[in-house]
Amino acid sequence: MDFGTLQILLREKQYNLLKEKLEKSHLVDIADFINHLDAKDTLLVFRLLPKDMAAEVFSYLTPASQAQISVEIKEKELYAILEELRFDDKIDFLEEMPANVVKKILLNSSETERRLINQFLNYPEDSAGSIMTIEFVELKKEMKVQESLEIIRQTARNKETIYTCYVTDAGRRLEGIISLRELVAASPGQSVAEIMRREFISAKTLDNKEYVASLIKKYDLLAIPVTDQENRLVGIITVDDIVDVIDEEITEDIHKMATVGKIDINLLDASPLFMVKKRLPWLLVLIVVGFFAGSGIAVFEETIQAAIALVFFLPLLIDSAGNAGSQSAALMIRALAVGDVEIGDWFELFKKELAVSILLGLVMAAIAYPIGVSRGGPDVAAVVALSMTAVVLVGSLIGMSLPFLLSRFKLDPALASGPLVTSIADVTGVLIYFFIASRYLGL
Amino acid sequence: MDFGTLQILLREKQYNLLKEKLEKSHLVDIADFINHLDAKDTLLVFRLLPKDMAAEVFSYLTPASQAQISVEIKEKELYAILEELRFDDKIDFLEEMPANVVKKILLNSSETERRLINQFLNYPEDSAGSIMTIEFVELKKEMKVQESLEIIRQTARNKETIYTCYVTDAGRRLEGIISLRELVAASPGQSVAEIMRREFISAKTLDNKEYVASLIKKYDLLAIPVTDQENRLVGIITVDDIVDVIDEEITEDIHKMATVGKIDINLLDASPLFMVKKRLPWLLVLIVVGFFAGSGIAVFEETIQAAIALVFFLPLLIDSAGNAGSQSAALMIRALAVGDVEIGDWFELFKKELAVSILLGLVMAAIAYPIGVSRGGPDVAAVVALSMTAVVLVGSLIGMSLPFLLSRFKLDPALASGPLVTSIADVTGVLIYFFIASRYLGL
Repeated sequence: MDFGTLQILLREKQYNLLKEKLEKSHLVDIADFINHLDAKDTLLVFRLLPKDMAAEVFSYLTPASQAQISVEIKEKELYAILEELRFDDKIDFLEEMPANVVKKILLNSSETERRLINQFLNYPEDSAGSIMTIEFVELKKEMKVQESLEIIRQTARNKETIYTCYVTDAGRRLEGIISLRELVAASPGQSVAEIMRREFISAKTLDNKEYVASLIKKYDLLAIPVTDQENRLVGIITVDDIVDVIDEEITEDIHKMATVGKIDINLLDASPLFMVKKRLPWLLVLIVVGFFAGSGIAVFEETIQAAIALVFFLPLLIDSAGNAGSQSAALMIRALAVGDVEIGDWFELFKKELAVSILLGLVMAAIAYPIGVSRGGPDVAAVVALSMTAVVLVGSLIGMSLPFLLSRFKLDPALASGPLVTSIADVTGVLIYFFIASRYLGL
Repeated sequence: MDFGTLQILLREKQYNLLKEKLEKSHLVDIADFINHLDAKDTLLVFRLLPKDMAAEVFSYLTPASQAQISVEIKEKELYAILEELRFDDKIDFLEEMPANVVKKILLNSSETERRLINQFLNYPEDSAGSIMTIEFVELKKEMKVQESLEIIRQTARNKETIYTCYVTDAGRRLEGIISLRELVAASPGQSVAEIMRREFISAKTLDNKEYVASLIKKYDLLAIPVTDQENRLVGIITVDDIVDVIDEEITEDIHKMATVGKIDINLLDASPLFMVKKRLPWLLVLIVVGFFAGSGIAVFEETIQAAIALVFFLPLLIDSAGNAGSQSAALMIRALAVGDVEIGDWFELFKKELAVSILLGLVMAAIAYPIGVSRGGPDVAAVVALSMTAVVLVGSLIGMSLPFLLSRFKLDPALASGPLVTSIADVTGVLIYFFIASRYLGL
């Protein structure tokens, strides 16, 4: 969308023209535009939106913009918007608001709604319950196809999806599911019981949302029903919400692979202290590992003193080991995450890694050898070449095995981060290098 | 699913029972089971499937299993399966088959189909054209709602999705889209023209598929229409196929962040030579960077000779710089990828990084100081603490800025990989450390 034109209209206070342009824009783009505005313009532009667009645009705004609007807007206006929001968007909004705002809104809700909101706000943060919505189509099995289609027709506007419908018994227990596709293709006189599927994929309220995402991905679902411990249908999760879960999951994995803790806010909004808390723990762990590398060096202090040229190659060798190891670790972490390989494939992959890393090591040794000759003569060059092959081999094998080891102990393979693998490879690299040097050079 | 029971039935040759169990299983699970079988059992189990399930299960098999079946099966059987496949699954299959198989299959197809297959096989690998399907519902704007629903009813079985329908003119140019939800909610006598949306999100055949994925994600779409250069509708892409694109994209990014080239096959199937080709280039680049770190050391050889204890802290310091830098780089790469931050936010984030990295550096220096005292006395400890603060600061600032710099030059920010940042941080770390040491210790 052309944000530039909108900006100009806003600056020139051409509100009528701006309003017209906005009305023709996609809801997502309008929200995008408002999210980028200064605090003072946010409410102004939001108020230009026609009533039927306002709630939908509101649901696409960032929590920061939502908060901005909800403190400045009149209470009555806010309630009107909340009234129009889909239930899952309302819960998302309330989760981000301060307790006093939530309390006020709850006081203004009906008894039933209040109970429902409280129930949803209480689902654990990463659970299926926390992202499900209650706006689904519920059918009964004795209904005829025609009658079902009529119900869908009348209620379509207020449902998150009408493309999968859920068949429940008198106690709201989930008995079957039926797609609109199947309903449309059936003859009008058939009963729902005849065509509904009794075998279907479902989730529980307390299931982890990443597990639910994996089910939707694996079975190519548009929506998945969520039931409580008594098998009562309490909500559904649609594929568009799952796309966001996948994104969050990947962000978490990428951060973990770089030894950063879980960050669920925009970096622009994060305080320095918050960031320090997320980054420091692993950096301190890695200092301990680095300390061992230093201790390895201390053991060989005399060797180093006798052939100071060896230090020249230290960063080169330990970096190479760490880099090769980081490559292997990343390959395995990702392959395990998407299910391309399983824990039982370790030995198969280990053998392959052996071949790969020997080849890599030999090529890299061939590059390092002439540098060794020029810096320290043929003996140092031989030590460097031999060490390069050995450290790349060992670094790669550690890097590829660590994710499997973590997985074996039910830990997240992504903890085998590049920095961790690099640090471990450094310790072994230092020991291998100076050991080979002391033996070969007779120091 | 309980693979164990199926395995036992297979081993005990209880084919009737196995067939019964399979018929009750989910297509995706059956495919999963077959994918894990030995070559000799693959065709055997596949042949147990009833005809109407066979094609669908086939579409969920890995290329390896598909190939296995298609070379062993009778030609007539293979054609029957291909006949039943959805068009996009057929193209996916043909893309993986050797040329002679494809040729044979094309010879066996009708003239129209042959032309269509050739057209689709020719779309570039990463284009929208390469992943779209032709099985969509096409409506005309003069149709009435009732008539449209009847068409959908009759053709539903063979369409990839019926939930979004496409309205085209006589020249097949796309004029509007309409969801089944809107059709169902409309009154039967309304015309399609009255209720269709004329403003909609669409893609071109040659658009990159990652761009299409970003559109579907951004606008929460179930499907997106794909048009050619003349705005003729040639296919659609559904959200379930996009979930796979997102997965591939993330894999590529994670590999890139670990300096591994693009790998689009399962690691278990990759040859060692293939893996070496994907991993070696960057390792060699990084050797060059490591060589500079060595050269830095060479400059300060006398300093090192005079205070050999300094070498003890070398891995600790350069690792810390690299680790802090890798953290910052990963944070920025991901935030840029999901659109949380933009290139214009660099300075804002740089200021924040300054605060964060000084804090991190000071804490880490406080940990390193006592180690310094115990290994080399108060002077060495002061050098180490000062260096730690400096290298963490510089490493972090390089790590956070590099992704922006790459982005600025239209390169992929993910190229600012952990290993690259680590290696650059090493060079600067070595220089800073020994510079401070030589000044402070007067060496």
